[in-house]
Amino acid sequence: MNTTAKLLLHCPDRPGILAEITNFITINGGNIVYLDQYVDHMENVFFTRIEWELEGFMIPRDKIYDYLNTLYAQKYKMDLRLYFSDVKPRMAIFVSKFSHCLFDMLARYTAGEWDVEIPLIVSNHPDLQHVAERFGIPYHVFPITKENKQAQEQAEMELLRENGIDFIVLARYMQVISEQMIEAYPNKIINIHHSFLPAFVGAKPYHAAFERGVKIIGATSHYVTTDLDAGPIIEQDVVRITHKDTPAELISKGKDLEKIVLSRAVQKHIERKVLAYKNKTVIFN
Amino acid sequence: MNTTAKLLLHCPDRPGILAEITNFITINGGNIVYLDQYVDHMENVFFTRIEWELEGFMIPRDKIYDYLNTLYAQKYKMDLRLYFSDVKPRMAIFVSKFSHCLFDMLARYTAGEWDVEIPLIVSNHPDLQHVAERFGIPYHVFPITKENKQAQEQAEMELLRENGIDFIVLARYMQVISEQMIEAYPNKIINIHHSFLPAFVGAKPYHAAFERGVKIIGATSHYVTTDLDAGPIIEQDVVRITHKDTPAELISKGKDLEKIVLSRAVQKHIERKVLAYKNKTVIFN
Amino acid sequence: MNTTAKLLLHCPDRPGILAEITNFITINGGNIVYLDQYVDHMENVFFTRIEWELEGFMIPRDKIYDYLNTLYAQKYKMDLRLYFSDVKPRMAIFVSKFSHCLFDMLARYTAGEWDVEIPLIVSNHPDLQHVAERFGIPYHVFPITKENKQAQEQAEMELLRENGIDFIVLARYMQVISEQMIEAYPNKIINIHHSFLPAFVGAKPYHAAFERGVKIIGATSHYVTTDLDAGPIIEQDVVRITHKDTPAELISKGKDLEKIVLSRAVQKHIERKVLAYKNKTVIFN
Amino acid sequence: MNTTAKLLLHCPDRPGILAEITNFITINGGNIVYLDQYVDHMENVFFTRIEWELEGFMIPRDKIYDYLNTLYAQKYKMDLRLYFSDVKPRMAIFVSKFSHCLFDMLARYTAGEWDVEIPLIVSNHPDLQHVAERFGIPYHVFPITKENKQAQEQAEMELLRENGIDFIVLARYMQVISEQMIEAYPNKIINIHHSFLPAFVGAKPYHAAFERGVKIIGATSHYVTTDLDAGPIIEQDVVRITHKDTPAELISKGKDLEKIVLSRAVQKHIERKVLAYKNKTVIFN
Repeated sequence: MNTTAKLLLHCPDRPGILAEITNFITINGGNIVYLDQYVDHMENVFFTRIEWELEGFMIPRDKIYDYLNTLYAQKYKMDLRLYFSDVKPRMAIFVSKFSHCLFDMLARYTAGEWDVEIPLIVSNHPDLQHVAERFGIPYHVFPITKENKQAQEQAEMELLRENGIDFIVLARYMQVISEQMIEAYPNKIINIHHSFLPAFVGAKPYHAAFERGVKIIGATSHYVTTDLDAGPIIEQDVVRITHKDTPAELISKGKDLEKIVLSRAVQKHIERKVLAYKNKTVIFN
Repeated sequence: MNTTAKLLLHCPDRPGILAEITNFITINGGNIVYLDQYVDHMENVFFTRIEWELEGFMIPRDKIYDYLNTLYAQKYKMDLRLYFSDVKPRMAIFVSKFSHCLFDMLARYTAGEWDVEIPLIVSNHPDLQHVAERFGIPYHVFPITKENKQAQEQAEMELLRENGIDFIVLARYMQVISEQMIEAYPNKIINIHHSFLPAFVGAKPYHAAFERGVKIIGATSHYVTTDLDAGPIIEQDVVRITHKDTPAELISKGKDLEKIVLSRAVQKHIERKVLAYKNKTVIFN
Repeated sequence: MNTTAKLLLHCPDRPGILAEITNFITINGGNIVYLDQYVDHMENVFFTRIEWELEGFMIPRDKIYDYLNTLYAQKYKMDLRLYFSDVKPRMAIFVSKFSHCLFDMLARYTAGEWDVEIPLIVSNHPDLQHVAERFGIPYHVFPITKENKQAQEQAEMELLRENGIDFIVLARYMQVISEQMIEAYPNKIINIHHSFLPAFVGAKPYHAAFERGVKIIGATSHYVTTDLDAGPIIEQDVVRITHKDTPAELISKGKDLEKIVLSRAVQKHIERKVLAYKNKTVIFN
Repeated sequence: MNTTAKLLLHCPDRPGILAEITNFITINGGNIVYLDQYVDHMENVFFTRIEWELEGFMIPRDKIYDYLNTLYAQKYKMDLRLYFSDVKPRMAIFVSKFSHCLFDMLARYTAGEWDVEIPLIVSNHPDLQHVAERFGIPYHVFPITKENKQAQEQAEMELLRENGIDFIVLARYMQVISEQMIEAYPNKIINIHHSFLPAFVGAKPYHAAFERGVKIIGATSHYVTTDLDAGPIIEQDVVRITHKDTPAELISKGKDLEKIVLSRAVQKHIERKVLAYKNKTVIFN
């Protein structure tokens, strides 16, 4: 695999943007290996994700962002992001007591399925230390109480900074993240909520689903915003249940959903295929 | 197919109920062709649906209910219902302006797929008269305003009584049914709501789903209670969408869901396989 | 809605094609309202579907194809097709004795959901005449025997020509179409097969699925080629079953699948979003 | 949780069987906590799974099987199996080089989700030794060649016997099991095949699915019989794909399917909810 540049951008839609950008890449010797685009005709916004090989591209990689910015960003009022395929994002996992999502992600990581680094795991409980040890990943316990929450989060953020963490995955982390931390990682904290949002926001969604007598349960992975369980949805999936399923069985069936939905969302994020916009996501395919 | 008796019952769970009932049927010469049972161990309630052939059964069909009632209902505090396979339930369809659910049900009815009679269609608008005419079913228009609502519903109920209607299907009927009518048809009014309840209760659920940026939309068929969109759920299903789907496309994709979900629920009801209990349903299979 | 031109093309992939085409449209005053593209990197083939508004486009609509052909088709070895949104394709439906797919399509047609004309229905049996009459569409019966098959198909094709039919939908038509007819309508005959192809090719797939003890059944819509049930797949879907389902219940559950899968495929075809290539389909979204 | 007895049986259907069995349990003081039954009316076979609490049951647990056998098995020509909830089945996992199914099962096992013992892992390659070590489970390598296959399988079976293994799970084990071993473990070897059987039997099913251009891929878990990929199916599931998915992406998407489908099948087997009959399975719920 050759190294590629990955460009994600959105801007007010105008005729010719795509032609201009693809032209720019092509005439400078870039071979486009991926292009997906989408126009939101209701909001009149143009979105695209373009990936091209750096080999033979005439603009040095450390100048590409500047060129794009100078030539197009102001002219088209673009919001643009540029990544390179040989730079792995660094991800921290936050857990509490449930191991299924953690195991699922570490299995993928260990098997080499994900182009990511996982330098550390954070928890408010010591329970999953053994999982981290099985995979040789440092496990940091920050017990949280009402009193120490702000200080502990400050310590966590310090740890994240020291380790150059790019994004955080809340793998059934049973603590509400405070505003200070959310604002430090905008659209960079991925949560899994164990319901088909917006149904059953908040605590104990399986019990609520049981009470309501639904015939299908779901799980939702989303970016964390300061509105609880209301951030941009990245991925959802569901499974059929029956009247015979007790809350305990919903919890059991839900675990498979949660881990698959969370891992799909994380994978899309790692691949730079998610573009959050106005409390929604554009998922490039 | 021989004529069968269909018994649905629930009662506090005690050892031996099922043995006693199946014994009763067997020693009286009944050949059981269907048995499904379920115990809610949380509420300690026993549910069963048993179907047996009348041919060779020694108790005359018009005495069976009495026998069951006398022998078991009081002893076990049973709530029991008895149906015969050769008595078709009579169903009224209420519609407004969308034809997809109506067409779907009438196609099944015309093809002989459902063991039901559909003597009439009720609407608050004349728009779907042409559909009723294609299938030769009387179409009664009762325009509804705030002022005339109570009177019109009284007239509708009179019409239903005259026609011996057993249950009502709201096939995207865009009127809230009033309490008087709901109480006259307890667990006998089946609605289709165009969302994955309890998400997006009320009007314009597809627009709400679009605004929230969900990745899956759903439809829910439920019995109507006096709590809006909160009655016992009979059937739900979902379909995957993407950021590219406009509200118009959600409405279009949702139509297929709505008609299939509603028809499945109606079919289960016709087959006497739904037992509503405490704002939930037991669905026998 | 303004009238649009819809261009579908594929050709060997080379840098700059998309830029050149979008440039061509843009500089000639066309407002692109839809663009989807895909590169098959294994076969090195470029596919795109582009739609732009004719209003303000400087090239007259009857010259567009020529321009595209002259300027690009030879240069890039393109296979290109051009449609206009105000020209409705004309569709014939072939049926035998099952009504569910026919009802489903005619309901959509009657409700104005599809941008298509359905001038006629062809059948080898008179059974569904009543359905055609309900919707006011001419119903032509061509009984088929081994002896008369070739002659009857000739007569059918004559009828199709007279009526300017663009494509044919086999809605559970229980006859194998002969080569002469398939070759006259390449990738223009859409069939629904009542299994999850390539499992259970041929007759009685539900019985075969029952015998095999599968836990899921499916339906497949595909273009008809001279290989039985082996043409390019347009759409598939599945539904879960259990050991309790008899062949009769599989047939019943399968009907809903068949009609939804076929209608989705037909809709994609009508919208010009299917591009058949090498016994597969590219489905633009 | 009280200890329970789990009875699975099938026999020719006759009136009164269920009544007699439930009576027997009830009058001997057993509290039935689970009952599921099914009659195959085509083959005229009765199937049931009954579970009751041993506490207060008047027949000693080591006599129950004898009683049932004497009183009913001959009379009704029953095939019956009896298990106790406090006896954990012992399971061996066979793997080759893919880790995803192995990780998934060991994560469940480690989290205490499964009532099973996993005393050992067998492989024909050393590659997954590290996974076994992470979970502290002995890993035995038996390299297989054409020449040594019979001897190696003998050695494997000796190891299984020494460890009291009840059933085997082939977690993407890339070797065909020979007849001698299959016959030693009838309906006790669970395999995962990476296609929606019976489509794409044999090697490289994802490549075959890609070639055929299907729109959905699947995975199938089944008991191994001497017919390759043709044994009784326990569980299947599917996921939607598009023309954009390369074989590599099918393999990646398929991994999630495989592990979930296999784990569901294994869980059903552990719970004694699978009854294989005539190359099919009855799955109690």
